[in-house]
Amino acid sequence: MEVYPKNFEALVESFKKLPGIGEKSAERMALAVLDMSLDDVSDMSQALMDAKKSLHPCSVCGNLTDQDVCQVCSNENRDKNLICVVEDYKSAFAFEKVGNFKGVYHVLNGLISPMMNIGAEDINLSSLVNRVDKLSHPEIILALKSSIEGETTTLYIKKIFEKKDVTISRLAYGLPMGAEIEYLDMMTLDKALFDRKIISE
Amino acid sequence: MEVYPKNFEALVESFKKLPGIGEKSAERMALAVLDMSLDDVSDMSQALMDAKKSLHPCSVCGNLTDQDVCQVCSNENRDKNLICVVEDYKSAFAFEKVGNFKGVYHVLNGLISPMMNIGAEDINLSSLVNRVDKLSHPEIILALKSSIEGETTTLYIKKIFEKKDVTISRLAYGLPMGAEIEYLDMMTLDKALFDRKIISE
Repeated sequence: MEVYPKNFEALVESFKKLPGIGEKSAERMALAVLDMSLDDVSDMSQALMDAKKSLHPCSVCGNLTDQDVCQVCSNENRDKNLICVVEDYKSAFAFEKVGNFKGVYHVLNGLISPMMNIGAEDINLSSLVNRVDKLSHPEIILALKSSIEGETTTLYIKKIFEKKDVTISRLAYGLPMGAEIEYLDMMTLDKALFDRKIISE
Repeated sequence: MEVYPKNFEALVESFKKLPGIGEKSAERMALAVLDMSLDDVSDMSQALMDAKKSLHPCSVCGNLTDQDVCQVCSNENRDKNLICVVEDYKSAFAFEKVGNFKGVYHVLNGLISPMMNIGAEDINLSSLVNRVDKLSHPEIILALKSSIEGETTTLYIKKIFEKKDVTISRLAYGLPMGAEIEYLDMMTLDKALFDRKIISE
């Protein structure tokens, strides 16, 4: 005995392929689709195909784009000598939302992970070397998370550029804004203490 | 400055129209779409249009169907004299998933709510009267939630059929299976005590 009408079942099954969407959420979403206007549903249907077909990594930095070169790399006002290296699209989006970064990105699309058998050649790293070789004294900001994979990748990139005329920095570690000190994990507190900033001397 | 590529933004905006999906979830879902196969995305795109265009209320019971008459109403093995009245499609799906109900449904698509200005004529109720009038001594099971709106609707339907040759029942109230008694709300405990079942006399 089938519980749902066929076309409803198909939509529920499709939604279940999205991350974090189980049976209940998929059902709720499918019912919401029936309540949406035909235009909205048609737009969603079209947006799916347009996104899937047109979006790909930028040929310069690996960030998500529907052009050959992404909107950051093709922006003349961005400082091409300041490259922020991030793990994935989401990190680049996060910095863009803040809106204060005036340099460009390099999206690795992964991190080196010996545990998962992901080596330097499996991530978008060689193109970073090519990019940097064409610049004169650029700064590379390593904006990778502080996991084993993040640290491994940070060390690896540091090593590649060690003998080149490149400034390498990493994001500051410390207290998140507004955090209660008593609830912070020991690692963060330790880092914040070690990296303390002198504000009067 | 736009954060996302245009086609990605459009997909994120579409997903945000779904219930319970905010900016973060929509972004995660849109990124997942890019990682899905073209076939899966194409299926989802098609499923949206198929569902929206083909699904509508059953002409007999108001349940969701892509036919004129739904698969429950058109099933010869279901007891047409036993009508379970539910608020919405979801409730009917829930009973179908359990799979033990052998009667048919009547989906009200709403509940009477004086507060929200929803009267008996705004829900799928007159067709229930028409259905019941053609049957000989049917049973109507009122499977509505125990909110003010649910109780109001239950009382209203009870009143309609009071002088007709119809058996009316409602779902049992009581302890949910497996519930810890100490954590149950007072209303439920009170109902469970009042509706206690004698098991030996």
